[in-house]
Amino acid sequence: MKIGVLGAGQLGRMLALHGFPLGMRFRFFDPTAKGPANDLAEQHAEDYRSAGALKSFAQGLDAVTYEFENVPVESARLLAECVPHVFPPPEALEASQDRFAEKTLFNSLGIPTAPFCCVENVDALRGAVEQFGLPAILKTRRMGYDGKGQFVIRNESHIDEAFRELGGRNLILEGFVDFDRELSILAARNRSGQTVFYPLVENVHEGGILRVARAPAPNLTPAMQPHAEELATRVLNALNYDGVLAIELFEKHGNLVANEMACRVHNSGHWTIEGAETSQFENHLRAGLDYPLGSAHALGYTVMLNLIGTVPVVRDILSVKGAHLHLYNKAPKPGRKLGHITVVGENPEEREVRLQELMEVMGQEISNRS
Amino acid sequence: MKIGVLGAGQLGRMLALHGFPLGMRFRFFDPTAKGPANDLAEQHAEDYRSAGALKSFAQGLDAVTYEFENVPVESARLLAECVPHVFPPPEALEASQDRFAEKTLFNSLGIPTAPFCCVENVDALRGAVEQFGLPAILKTRRMGYDGKGQFVIRNESHIDEAFRELGGRNLILEGFVDFDRELSILAARNRSGQTVFYPLVENVHEGGILRVARAPAPNLTPAMQPHAEELATRVLNALNYDGVLAIELFEKHGNLVANEMACRVHNSGHWTIEGAETSQFENHLRAGLDYPLGSAHALGYTVMLNLIGTVPVVRDILSVKGAHLHLYNKAPKPGRKLGHITVVGENPEEREVRLQELMEVMGQEISNRS
Repeated sequence: MKIGVLGAGQLGRMLALHGFPLGMRFRFFDPTAKGPANDLAEQHAEDYRSAGALKSFAQGLDAVTYEFENVPVESARLLAECVPHVFPPPEALEASQDRFAEKTLFNSLGIPTAPFCCVENVDALRGAVEQFGLPAILKTRRMGYDGKGQFVIRNESHIDEAFRELGGRNLILEGFVDFDRELSILAARNRSGQTVFYPLVENVHEGGILRVARAPAPNLTPAMQPHAEELATRVLNALNYDGVLAIELFEKHGNLVANEMACRVHNSGHWTIEGAETSQFENHLRAGLDYPLGSAHALGYTVMLNLIGTVPVVRDILSVKGAHLHLYNKAPKPGRKLGHITVVGENPEEREVRLQELMEVMGQEISNRS
Repeated sequence: MKIGVLGAGQLGRMLALHGFPLGMRFRFFDPTAKGPANDLAEQHAEDYRSAGALKSFAQGLDAVTYEFENVPVESARLLAECVPHVFPPPEALEASQDRFAEKTLFNSLGIPTAPFCCVENVDALRGAVEQFGLPAILKTRRMGYDGKGQFVIRNESHIDEAFRELGGRNLILEGFVDFDRELSILAARNRSGQTVFYPLVENVHEGGILRVARAPAPNLTPAMQPHAEELATRVLNALNYDGVLAIELFEKHGNLVANEMACRVHNSGHWTIEGAETSQFENHLRAGLDYPLGSAHALGYTVMLNLIGTVPVVRDILSVKGAHLHLYNKAPKPGRKLGHITVVGENPEEREVRLQELMEVMGQEISNRS
């Protein structure tokens, strides 16, 4: 069984680490040579839009998936003609790549979002700001990630600047959602329709980048998990989805508003390697090959800490009780995700104690800026 | 950090799978091309006794370990001159490769074994049989594994045949140990002397090959775990050991007699991937690099089932609740270990239920022959 993966970053690397035990082998496709996944398998370093390169990549593959959300949909569609199966469905990838299509899909399924509209010129932007009020967030419809491609408009004098800075086309204005925290729900669905849900995760960002994830999220009301599962189910079924799907949610007093979705394994699911009975990586692969899914049950109270910009001293990290280190073999660079650490506590208190110990040995603090 | 591994079998494959997250990369050395580890990293397919090949292999490595117990000790010693560190110590490898040296070491440390003596001719064998009584087991001093290189002498008329069949030189006769079951203790010790112990494992063999391992072993008396740890500690300290050490033990009414040891990760420790807080593979690597060791605490009641000779239908295996599959990508062949399955139960009863379910979906039985 040979799986092709579009993208050769850390998500691909971890997919491979969890697919090898199932007897799978891997081939990666990523224009940037020597990606983190290339340590473990061959990589085709070609352009995503080269039909010839994609066809050569497809030779002998049993299935193709993606670990990078901005793979051109046309490339996924082309591969779907060359290999027995591409998952998640290219239609899902397409919807997730365009904030307007994504939020339109959510709303069509009765899933609440922030108010939003497309703005193609400054006058339309002014009108939308008037309608939604301030603050409001202007975003590029495509290619945004880790807080990039966004401008928070706090007063009207910033409207021109925001419009210019984001390139003046293919923009979407979103009304402000007053939320207490960000959560995410991860689900896996296989081709036969079997679905499992991981417990809701609480995500803390720093400079727009995920810094800490706690799973299960602290202080959940009893209704929130089933409600989040119900929202995710609508998306999974509407898209006839197979693979892992992540939906980021804003929470205010127990109410959930969808922000965006990722049609792939997700950073807020890295905790599942040690913290859940079956990792998101294994379940993503099981789902796409229509194998029975593994339990998504949490084994304890897990915290996942992203290592951003610098790699700490390995010895220090491993001195913390229960700390599991995952390095991606990437060159250090400010704002770059270089690895993560997971600790599974027996209770929520132990989780906080271990997190504190980790921060201390690294000489860092969680700033909690979003 | 680049680690060289002598041997490219499934143990090497699993070492790599658990070392990549720690930021390690791997290079394997194995005369048999395209070993199971070669799926994930480069392999030098050369003769273990070629100094030139070993020196080329050593280029740029930070440490070397072994996953095959019959690596020539001279090769390990040569590598120790070329790379910063070789682990476990070549002296330990040397002792473990010769049943006579191994049992002599055990006895010198006050660790009980079966009575044993070297036999170099048939007369000496007759004398030893007279001394130990029958049945007794004639074994080659070297290169025995999975029940190979052994002859159980049940009556005196078999003495000549046994001697001839095992080649007539470098043999050892072992007196019969009347035991209830085989256990194993796995320990990890790092270069600073930190030591952790996994819970005792109960091993069930079939045709001389490990078939089922249960961890923690059922029906342990309170004294047995600390006693086994104490025996292992003597060996670890005597050899100034670093890495994972496995000692196979015979148990009769709570008494422990050492059978043999392996200076590497061990089949009876595969359950640790899902069943312990830190896997034997990760702890072996942490130990050799003198990182702090991870907890060897069991997360539940685990059973590990070896897949021997044939690979079952993946879909069937994964339909069993909690089943984790590990395939080695080896060609099927009678008696060959092709993979294993692990299930972690919440209690000993659940462990047996899951094992039964696995046997049923595979249409197999555990014969319990040793």
